[in-house]
Amino acid sequence: VGKRAWAHGKACRHSSRHSGPRHWLCHIVRVFPPGGRGKKVLIVYAHQEPKSFNGSLKKVAVEELSKQGCTVTVSDLYSMNFEPRATRNDITGAPSNPDVFSYGIETHEAYKKKALTSDIFEEQRKVQEADLVIFQFPLYWFSVPAILKGWMDRVLCRGFAFDIPGFYDSGFLKGKLALLSLTTGGTAEMYTKDGVSGDFRYFLWPLQHGTLHFCGFKVLAPQISFGLDVSSEEERKVMLASWAQRLKSIWKEEPIHCTPPWYFQE
Amino acid sequence: VGKRAWAHGKACRHSSRHSGPRHWLCHIVRVFPPGGRGKKVLIVYAHQEPKSFNGSLKKVAVEELSKQGCTVTVSDLYSMNFEPRATRNDITGAPSNPDVFSYGIETHEAYKKKALTSDIFEEQRKVQEADLVIFQFPLYWFSVPAILKGWMDRVLCRGFAFDIPGFYDSGFLKGKLALLSLTTGGTAEMYTKDGVSGDFRYFLWPLQHGTLHFCGFKVLAPQISFGLDVSSEEERKVMLASWAQRLKSIWKEEPIHCTPPWYFQE
Repeated sequence: VGKRAWAHGKACRHSSRHSGPRHWLCHIVRVFPPGGRGKKVLIVYAHQEPKSFNGSLKKVAVEELSKQGCTVTVSDLYSMNFEPRATRNDITGAPSNPDVFSYGIETHEAYKKKALTSDIFEEQRKVQEADLVIFQFPLYWFSVPAILKGWMDRVLCRGFAFDIPGFYDSGFLKGKLALLSLTTGGTAEMYTKDGVSGDFRYFLWPLQHGTLHFCGFKVLAPQISFGLDVSSEEERKVMLASWAQRLKSIWKEEPIHCTPPWYFQE
Repeated sequence: VGKRAWAHGKACRHSSRHSGPRHWLCHIVRVFPPGGRGKKVLIVYAHQEPKSFNGSLKKVAVEELSKQGCTVTVSDLYSMNFEPRATRNDITGAPSNPDVFSYGIETHEAYKKKALTSDIFEEQRKVQEADLVIFQFPLYWFSVPAILKGWMDRVLCRGFAFDIPGFYDSGFLKGKLALLSLTTGGTAEMYTKDGVSGDFRYFLWPLQHGTLHFCGFKVLAPQISFGLDVSSEEERKVMLASWAQRLKSIWKEEPIHCTPPWYFQE
């Protein structure tokens, strides 16, 4: 079945059983296609091991979204050996100031002249085409792994993702959705207001507000799979299933209100 | 002068002017040496350009701390081309589980067997020797640049910086001080509770609490040089001078109380 189920042209998928007029269910599907049909999703995935739980979460998302009729692209950062360092290698040709190198100024200029290095350009193309960007990663030090931080540092450059002015609600990626799907070693109890690690919303602030919202993304609620250090096989299955279940109606979700009260006052 | 000023053995530094008994000032210095004498400082520095303002802040710190008699070591991450990616290349020899690679498990095992790659080991040695670690960096996406995130991901591994249990106040780097010295493009007004980017303390949470405090560091107040995108040459000089001035009495400072109230309620 997969995405082809919703992409039927002349014949409906029940045609082998119904040689007469088109089946009533298929008419309904044509009038009310499932939310994902025609949507484009980019999954930016940062785990070293395909057999990991992060790998499974990524796989489940690809399968479920494809089944809905979405076009799914995965940037598998470790297998791409993605470059995380922001250096002058990111611009081709001569710098605008050969004496003093400013990464922000030079990449802004290079973006305008189409002189960014090709790996950055390729990721920007994927983001530009996407309706939804899902970030799948294990929490490292209350944040993304460095390889994914490097994706943010290098891909979301001025000119492409924002300008000054032209940020937060006016960020250039407005109209797109973003979602963080992450795993933690520590338990959900540790990530509560009175837990040792504080409310999980605290560590989401730099990522969801400072990065994604800054670029104009509407942010969907995070998907957090807590406590992997102590979870049983059964608990992991439940977490995987709940992710798959959520994705079935992901296109109907309302974004969070990505401002301080969501993080610090609720 | 520099650090040798305070390291005088037989003769005091005024000996060329005083051939008689030791000068009174030198006696005082012997009884009350300045705080930095004999202290070791590691500066983890993440900027591409020596002529940058970050470069100047780093230079000022090296000079002032050396003058006090500290031994100062700098890890200049870009010039080292420091590896930010957390991969199986970080362990030498056979992994403990050849079928499924877990970075956390494998590096913990490798630490115990002294089988981590040499660049990680070398940074751990510098941290182990330091009384104070200063991180000097420009804020990228409300956080550290990826190259510095990679330093945190790879150097502060389980077994070296913490264990479970053995974190926060019991973290293995307890007894050491840490300080974030960072620059922002945005102004101080933007980083207030009612500003577009929220209180600057919000973005410090993952770094100061989630990372440094987790490893046991006592955290000194951050040094934030705001508004570099709009600052005049004169304003930059003032910021540099205030950093140098602060460092003169850095060893007398009390650490912040690194828990949620400092970040979210004051």
